[in-house]
Amino acid sequence: MKKIINSPNDLTRELLEGFCYAYSDEVKLIEGTHTVVRRKPKEAGKVKLVIGNGSGHEPCTNGWVGKGMLDMDIVGDIFSAPSYDVMFDSLKLIDDGSPILLFVQNHAGDVLNANICYEMAIEADMNIKKVLFYDDVASAPLEFQEERRGMAGYIFYMKIVGAMAEAGCSLEECVAMFEKVRGATRTISTAIDGGTNPQTGIKLFNLNENEIEIGMGVHGEGGVTTVPLCTAKELAEKICDILIADGGYQNGDEIITLVNGSGATTVMELNIIYKGIFEYLSSKGIKPESAIIDNLLTTQESAGFSISMLKVAEDMKPHWDAESNAPYFKS
Amino acid sequence: MKKIINSPNDLTRELLEGFCYAYSDEVKLIEGTHTVVRRKPKEAGKVKLVIGNGSGHEPCTNGWVGKGMLDMDIVGDIFSAPSYDVMFDSLKLIDDGSPILLFVQNHAGDVLNANICYEMAIEADMNIKKVLFYDDVASAPLEFQEERRGMAGYIFYMKIVGAMAEAGCSLEECVAMFEKVRGATRTISTAIDGGTNPQTGIKLFNLNENEIEIGMGVHGEGGVTTVPLCTAKELAEKICDILIADGGYQNGDEIITLVNGSGATTVMELNIIYKGIFEYLSSKGIKPESAIIDNLLTTQESAGFSISMLKVAEDMKPHWDAESNAPYFKS
Repeated sequence: MKKIINSPNDLTRELLEGFCYAYSDEVKLIEGTHTVVRRKPKEAGKVKLVIGNGSGHEPCTNGWVGKGMLDMDIVGDIFSAPSYDVMFDSLKLIDDGSPILLFVQNHAGDVLNANICYEMAIEADMNIKKVLFYDDVASAPLEFQEERRGMAGYIFYMKIVGAMAEAGCSLEECVAMFEKVRGATRTISTAIDGGTNPQTGIKLFNLNENEIEIGMGVHGEGGVTTVPLCTAKELAEKICDILIADGGYQNGDEIITLVNGSGATTVMELNIIYKGIFEYLSSKGIKPESAIIDNLLTTQESAGFSISMLKVAEDMKPHWDAESNAPYFKS
Repeated sequence: MKKIINSPNDLTRELLEGFCYAYSDEVKLIEGTHTVVRRKPKEAGKVKLVIGNGSGHEPCTNGWVGKGMLDMDIVGDIFSAPSYDVMFDSLKLIDDGSPILLFVQNHAGDVLNANICYEMAIEADMNIKKVLFYDDVASAPLEFQEERRGMAGYIFYMKIVGAMAEAGCSLEECVAMFEKVRGATRTISTAIDGGTNPQTGIKLFNLNENEIEIGMGVHGEGGVTTVPLCTAKELAEKICDILIADGGYQNGDEIITLVNGSGATTVMELNIIYKGIFEYLSSKGIKPESAIIDNLLTTQESAGFSISMLKVAEDMKPHWDAESNAPYFKS
């Protein structure tokens, strides 16, 4: 493994320390933990947004802590959820009686630990709600969508619900908007080449030179179909067809797209893919409102990308456009 | 070559179209050209900032067009400067008598074409000045620093001079600050593994499994030394020693650092490297003010990174912190 690290056992602590040194005006690490919080906490009384997740996907999710987005990211080890007791200890540190909204990405470890942590928080009389996010159309059919994995589409709710919490909306309003965003978001991924697990040095997955895997999970979980290497335009159209069918996007709908690189796919390629998406959506009368093209939720140096689409409603737009100063998502 | 593109001959046009579709509120492509400008032009009379450069390094440099940064990016083909006549034609399109500052990165093709374009602009009575940027300590000794290559440190002058131009500073003030920033900026790169030229499919350079090249240029130009694979801490200290010696950084100096990934190096690793830099600078009494950690100036999916340091003066800080809305550098 040719990675520039110190010790495989200290990856998470060291990356979080480096991150918080760099962006010390916005974020800090709670001493003795792997939990990132805002340098300047949100005013008491407003809804606090918290998530727990594994590391190794940088800049996600720690990069989204900041004004207008998350209040706290409880970071587990590489590709591993933080344990429920670690999560609960972190929650206690920000609990001042303000409402707390605990975001959970639908992955087995995240759900298991968040559920126990949530029960402990209720037991401790915290004013907390918990919501589960899923967006990966490849991992379960539409009628069982609550079994779908959580993928990069979570940027949409973090930004939109984050702006609402910042503006002083209630916990109930935040939950209602979360559910609306979740219902309007779809993601599908493509894998071109596997990255390396930085703890074990083992390649995450292998593909043939002329194959693209569609529908693979962010840790290399098996996809739904393997297709031959094709042009960006062909791949963009294939992906759009899947998302349009599943999301029920129609003529006149406005779509915000996230083209999320998995790590080693160039922004050049991601731009070219978005050209294909924009033109294909437009040809169907679907309006591509805007897009984010970046390597946000990565899987080390894997090559590939995911496309997330949000059918954006009028009441989401001001929150999507609102100010945020999270280090890796400023607007 | 396993890249998701359409045709190797259309890379630049297609990536710029995708980029401008995605960020259409901020930028647009001038029809029939590869020149990116702001959607909403700067007020007449203020200094306009222009650069010409090759593509293939996305999100640079097109990603930095926007309020508070560049007014125009004239994009050449993959790794190739735009020709002088293309540059001059683009300049004519924004010339309304406002002062123009033409930034030139010190690479042979960029300099050659910019120099001829500049002569044509003078001949055409444009109110224009031209400045040359160099920051790569590996490419020439300090006494011949004007022969050094231009590297990722250009983010510092684009942001700082960009903010001054936005605030209405004169062309002379902008040039004076540019020279001050250039004098206080140093960069050195490391290469871990070569990416692929997307037009030819040829690997840009090869290194042994246990070697790191120090001082390589952004197109794979030969470095100054090859060192064995080492820890992030050791590498960070080696790099700091070079930059501190060359920049003459001393106890009490304040440093802004850019940790710039070349493409395939994970943000996890870049964070860990910055931890080493922060701690080493601090141990010398040098103050690490803040840092940007990202893949900004890339060389396709090369692995490696460059470290740029700016010894920040008081009169630079408000401009560094000023608002910018360029798609890939918001603050």
